Amino acid sequence: MKDLALGIDIGGTNTVFGCCDCEGNVHFETSVPTTDSKAPELLVERIYDQLHKEGLIDRIIGVGIGAPNGNYFSGSIEFAPNLSWKGKIPLAQLFHDKFGVPTYLTNDANAAAMGEMIYGNAKDLKDFVTVTLGTGLGSGIVVDGKMIYGHDGFAGEYGHIRVIPNGRLCGCGRRGCLETYVSATGVVRSIIELDSKHKNSSSILTSMDHPSAVQVFKHAKTGDKFAQEIIDFTAKMLGNALADFACFSSPKAYVLFGGIAQSGKEFADKVKTHMEEALLNIYKNKIEIRISALHELNAAVLGASSLVWNEIN
Amino acid sequence: MKDLALGIDIGGTNTVFGCCDCEGNVHFETSVPTTDSKAPELLVERIYDQLHKEGLIDRIIGVGIGAPNGNYFSGSIEFAPNLSWKGKIPLAQLFHDKFGVPTYLTNDANAAAMGEMIYGNAKDLKDFVTVTLGTGLGSGIVVDGKMIYGHDGFAGEYGHIRVIPNGRLCGCGRRGCLETYVSATGVVRSIIELDSKHKNSSSILTSMDHPSAVQVFKHAKTGDKFAQEIIDFTAKMLGNALADFACFSSPKAYVLFGGIAQSGKEFADKVKTHMEEALLNIYKNKIEIRISALHELNAAVLGASSLVWNEIN
Repeated sequence: MKDLALGIDIGGTNTVFGCCDCEGNVHFETSVPTTDSKAPELLVERIYDQLHKEGLIDRIIGVGIGAPNGNYFSGSIEFAPNLSWKGKIPLAQLFHDKFGVPTYLTNDANAAAMGEMIYGNAKDLKDFVTVTLGTGLGSGIVVDGKMIYGHDGFAGEYGHIRVIPNGRLCGCGRRGCLETYVSATGVVRSIIELDSKHKNSSSILTSMDHPSAVQVFKHAKTGDKFAQEIIDFTAKMLGNALADFACFSSPKAYVLFGGIAQSGKEFADKVKTHMEEALLNIYKNKIEIRISALHELNAAVLGASSLVWNEIN
Repeated sequence: MKDLALGIDIGGTNTVFGCCDCEGNVHFETSVPTTDSKAPELLVERIYDQLHKEGLIDRIIGVGIGAPNGNYFSGSIEFAPNLSWKGKIPLAQLFHDKFGVPTYLTNDANAAAMGEMIYGNAKDLKDFVTVTLGTGLGSGIVVDGKMIYGHDGFAGEYGHIRVIPNGRLCGCGRRGCLETYVSATGVVRSIIELDSKHKNSSSILTSMDHPSAVQVFKHAKTGDKFAQEIIDFTAKMLGNALADFACFSSPKAYVLFGGIAQSGKEFADKVKTHMEEALLNIYKNKIEIRISALHELNAAVLGASSLVWNEIN
C-alpha cells in the first residue's frame, strides 16, 4: 500500500529525510551529511538504499523536497550559495527517475509554510505568511490557500527586502536587508554593532568568545540588560517590517518558525506590539503573530512531506 | 440581449460610468459630480435613470465598481477619507438591489489591474502588479491570473510601505510611505523639500505659484535641471521600491498607470534602470516595466467593467 510521503530537507550541512503519513505521523527519520554526496545522484542513491533497507520503498506515494534556492516550477535547485553542488541541479527529476513517483521541490521556507498549513498552526488559515528565522530569514506566502510562487518560482524573499537605506551589508551584496538584522546571524551582528550603556557590563561579551543568538536570548532571560536590548531591537525591526509587508498580501497571521521564534512567547509578543504600533490603520488588530507548531516535532520532514499531501488532496 | 457591463469609477470629485462590451468597446460614457449625491442611494438612482434614458438598462449583464477603499469581499466602501459618505457603504448591494444583476466592487487600483489584464497591456501576463500614480500611489497585484485580495480584501497597498525611516509625513499618519515620494503629490512636495544648486534658477518656482507634477515633467522636457532632478529622484525612489517589492510576488512586469507614468517612456526607462541596479540577483533582467495601455482610452470605465467580464469568463 502506498501510504507514505518521503520528505527530504536539503541543508548546507545535513540532509534530513523521513517518511510521513497524511496525518503527520513520522514513520522513519534519519539524516546524512549533504557534503558526503559529491554529486546529487549519489544522495538520491543513498536515500533510496536506506529506504529499501527499511522496507519502505513500496509504500512511497510521492517525494517532497525542501531545499535552499529550490524552484517549484523547474524542480531544480538553482545556484544555491551554501551547497557544494553548483549551477542548476534537477533534483526533482533525479528523484522521480529513481523512485518512479511524483516529486515536488520548493525552497525550505515554502516547505515550512506548507507544513504549517497541512499539519501545524495554520491549519485554520487560508491567508498567512510563514517567516523562518534561521541563519537567514526566509518566507513562504500563502494566499487563499495557495502558495505564492511568482512568475519564476522565486516569490517570497522577505529576508532581502531592504529596511534600512545603506544599512548592514548583506551576503547578497546589497545593504540593509531585513535578514541582516532579523536572523540568528543578525542577532550576533547586533552584539557588535549596537551601542548601549549596558554593553560593557553585559556577560554576553565578557563570558563568551563567540556568543550565539540562542545565548543572547538565554542571557536576556537571566536579566542581562544589553541582551534584552538586542532582543527588543530585533523584535522592533521584525515588527516594523511585518507591518509594512501587510501591505502586500494582507495576511490573517504571520507564523514564526526557527530558533529565534522558538525562544518563546515573549519574543512573539514583542514583535506583535511593535507591529501593531507601525501598522496602517486598516490592518490594525487583525493580524496574529503565531509561533510554529512544528518546532519540537520533525519539522523539516513534515514540511517537505506536506508538499506531497498538498498535491494529492 | 445582455451584452454590456456597467463600469463605475467612484472618485472623490467625479464619478465616471459607462457601458462596455466584452471586447472593450465603450458604448456610452459620462460622469457626474460624486458630491452631488448626498447619500449613495441617490447616486445609484441617478446612474439607473441615465441608463434608462439611454435605453441600455436591459443590456446590462453585471455592474463593476472601482472605488477608494473598496472591499471586494464585503462589496462595501469602507471609511474612505476622500468621500463625503462616512463609515461602511454597502454600494455593491445597493446597485444589485436596483439593477438586479451581479455586482462586483473593489478598489480603484485593483480595477485598473483587472482592466489591464482583460483589455490592456497585461493580456499576456499571469503575474504582474499595476502601480497607479495619481494623487496617491495604489497597487493591484495579480498572481497566477488572480487578483490578490488578502484575508480581508485590503491586500495591495504598496503606497503605504515605508521606504524611508522617519521620512515624509503621510496622510495615513505614519512617516516615509512610498506615496509621499512617488505620486503627483509627492512630486510637488519634492519641489519644496529637495535641495539643489539648480533650484534658484529653476523656472518651476519662479514662473508658477502652485506648480503641479505635470508641470514638473513638462519643465524637465524643456531642459530645466531642477525639474530633471526631481524626476530622477522620483524614478529612483520608485525603482528602488519596485526592486524590493519583487521579493513579494516576483512579478513578470510592473505596469505603471496614471499621470506620471503617462509622461512617457523616459520615466519608465529611468525606473527600470534604478530597479535593475537595486534588484536581488535572482530577479535581475527578468522584470519588465510597462506603461498602461488604458491611459488614452476610457480607463476608469474599462477597469470597472473588466471586473464583470473577469467573473463571467
